[in-house]
Amino acid sequence: MAEETLLSVDEALARVLAKAVRADSRCVPVERALGLVLGETVCAERDSPPFDRAMMDGYAVHGADAGRTVRLVGEVAAGDEGASAKPLEAGTAVRIMTGACVPAGAEAVVPLEDVTLAEESLLPVPSTVTAEQHIARRGCETRAGTAVVREGDIITPLVAGTLAGVGYEAVAVYPPPRLAILATGNELGASGAAGIRDTNTPMLAVLARSMRVPEPECFRVGDTLASLNSALGACESATHVLLTGGVSAGAYDLVPEALAAWGAKPLLHKVRQKPGKPLLVATRTSAEGHDQLIFGLPGNPLAAHLGFQRYVAPALRVYMNKSPEPRRERATLTTALSGDRTRTTFALATLRGGGGEADARWWAEPVRLRGSADLYSAAKANALLRVEPGQTLAAGSEVVADWLVGCEAEPTLE
Amino acid sequence: MAEETLLSVDEALARVLAKAVRADSRCVPVERALGLVLGETVCAERDSPPFDRAMMDGYAVHGADAGRTVRLVGEVAAGDEGASAKPLEAGTAVRIMTGACVPAGAEAVVPLEDVTLAEESLLPVPSTVTAEQHIARRGCETRAGTAVVREGDIITPLVAGTLAGVGYEAVAVYPPPRLAILATGNELGASGAAGIRDTNTPMLAVLARSMRVPEPECFRVGDTLASLNSALGACESATHVLLTGGVSAGAYDLVPEALAAWGAKPLLHKVRQKPGKPLLVATRTSAEGHDQLIFGLPGNPLAAHLGFQRYVAPALRVYMNKSPEPRRERATLTTALSGDRTRTTFALATLRGGGGEADARWWAEPVRLRGSADLYSAAKANALLRVEPGQTLAAGSEVVADWLVGCEAEPTLE
Repeated sequence: MAEETLLSVDEALARVLAKAVRADSRCVPVERALGLVLGETVCAERDSPPFDRAMMDGYAVHGADAGRTVRLVGEVAAGDEGASAKPLEAGTAVRIMTGACVPAGAEAVVPLEDVTLAEESLLPVPSTVTAEQHIARRGCETRAGTAVVREGDIITPLVAGTLAGVGYEAVAVYPPPRLAILATGNELGASGAAGIRDTNTPMLAVLARSMRVPEPECFRVGDTLASLNSALGACESATHVLLTGGVSAGAYDLVPEALAAWGAKPLLHKVRQKPGKPLLVATRTSAEGHDQLIFGLPGNPLAAHLGFQRYVAPALRVYMNKSPEPRRERATLTTALSGDRTRTTFALATLRGGGGEADARWWAEPVRLRGSADLYSAAKANALLRVEPGQTLAAGSEVVADWLVGCEAEPTLE
Repeated sequence: MAEETLLSVDEALARVLAKAVRADSRCVPVERALGLVLGETVCAERDSPPFDRAMMDGYAVHGADAGRTVRLVGEVAAGDEGASAKPLEAGTAVRIMTGACVPAGAEAVVPLEDVTLAEESLLPVPSTVTAEQHIARRGCETRAGTAVVREGDIITPLVAGTLAGVGYEAVAVYPPPRLAILATGNELGASGAAGIRDTNTPMLAVLARSMRVPEPECFRVGDTLASLNSALGACESATHVLLTGGVSAGAYDLVPEALAAWGAKPLLHKVRQKPGKPLLVATRTSAEGHDQLIFGLPGNPLAAHLGFQRYVAPALRVYMNKSPEPRRERATLTTALSGDRTRTTFALATLRGGGGEADARWWAEPVRLRGSADLYSAAKANALLRVEPGQTLAAGSEVVADWLVGCEAEPTLE
């Protein structure tokens, strides 16, 4: 098949997204929900603050007593209920702690550091006291019944605090996918000179973890239909199945046949891209009744990596009710970059600079590979650039760089 | 003490960083090391590829046979050692699979799809075959003894794959800190109208998790010296101790006294900032012999949050051998923002836009709080803005926005 007639990268992604489903929401402990998307809108079940709250350590006074000396008649600590039940009489004050209930009738809190007691129980109230100072009235932050966080919000530390504030220890979220990873190939882990190490499983497992997939199930599979069938049979619970290797034209490339036997329907096979042309994607309904997306990634680690970044990651994001798009930056290309003649090229690059710099500019430096499977040079990449067939991007031109999953900018020591 | 004479926010951070130590490196499984910093330089222990590797499915041929018809004499599969031991004779070819050893003497691989066999064992070699095509020679990617990843590199999925490629299942990293969180206050979890929920512990625990701290130890402590002392006594293993509440001037603010009794040396107390002025930081040598940094954060959740973002997070990053700086962006302010008259104000904001937009511009919208402890409105924030004392930033002005820990940009569905 001439490369020009292969499926375009945009059409391939569109086909994957058309079949990408969203998870059903389910309840998880708030402390483990960081970065997940809320599956419910949560309302305050009571006013906040739930009582008139002192916001400083000091003295609760009547506003009308500004400029007068009043008598200290007691104290209210935070969490201290009895004392607050008694209304404050004119001409008196109580010592009060941050977070405590302001007694009825009190209209201001005079901070501790703003006054000196005349005698132990005589308080000169400054004339500058203003009504309501350092008091947060019941319900001023939120009223019972008001939505405090909404379905679709991402759970951040502040959202976790808010959920705790309204009494939620667990909350409905769109949960992470259940992932199975099958590395095929007799050469993987084989002893002797022709054996090679399986780099795809650790790489894909770390990619999955970086997207909050808790424990991907991993299988190593030899180049026989029987071992492929048996491993696939253990994947009924998975929502997404990733295979590596065995999708090209070789005599030992049994993945298409095994997937057909498993009842998977092909969605696409071969994409006009470099690397990763032999990509195969299929769909299936699992024996447990849920939809499955199955990705046959090439065995070349850089091709498998691209397949994950470009097609698997968007589907996983949709599953978690997030935008399929990666984070991206506009960047200046440091050196010229040429694409393949007939295929869309996805080139690895290192992004540097950004908002921490004076001009906030990002620089994208293409990674030079020593061969199409050179994982070692690729290790310094954190972003992906796209070059159209036959296109050459000049040094200094502006490009869009997609952050690689698992490499989202974190300042490093240079 | 007049606020003008309080410690500046820059001096406070400098004092914390001066005492922030880096962890000793230790070995962890590669699959759990995402985002940590390598504590060793790792070298390839053999050439990669370890043999001359076919990069396509096809036929291994002699370059001199271009344009001739040659005889197929066998096949070599990936992982298949015996066959590759035999050198290829002129006038012959072998069927070869991607990832297999190219036989000695072969100088090119002709892809399967580029030829049609004349008869079952006769292969017309295209005249366009070029020397070395689709062969990755032994050692072309990396040579035995060459460094493939370096101390200081952050572990990404591609780095994990590289480590697997050189046989590493575990690797030395700068590990995450061991964190203890002590929430003080009789009002926390108290039943009845004066009780409030503890929002600080879940919020700080999620903040810690977002920085890869695995399981912070959490304690709830009443307002007595005895309960504080007892909880601190359980923190000897912690590298960093966070307390919330009890650091102001109130009669129940026992943290300074308890810390002194525990042998902690004050590093600073009170900072010219809003929120979070009562911050207290101390240092100590634990009974186990390691350095400890102790943060007395205010009880107000927004003040505790700021204290974590501004002082705790940089110390934790340094511990993991990362830059203390947060990720930041240049952004355009959407509405005017005024600072406190005498203190540096840290205002929460929502960052929107960025590299995914046509103009790559970020917009920072200050979050309007309904009171100084309004966690509910704060929940939509993902960034922090700094306003100097007495300063007003005009709408439309350019500001530097620090991403909040745990909120680093992730595209959301709008």
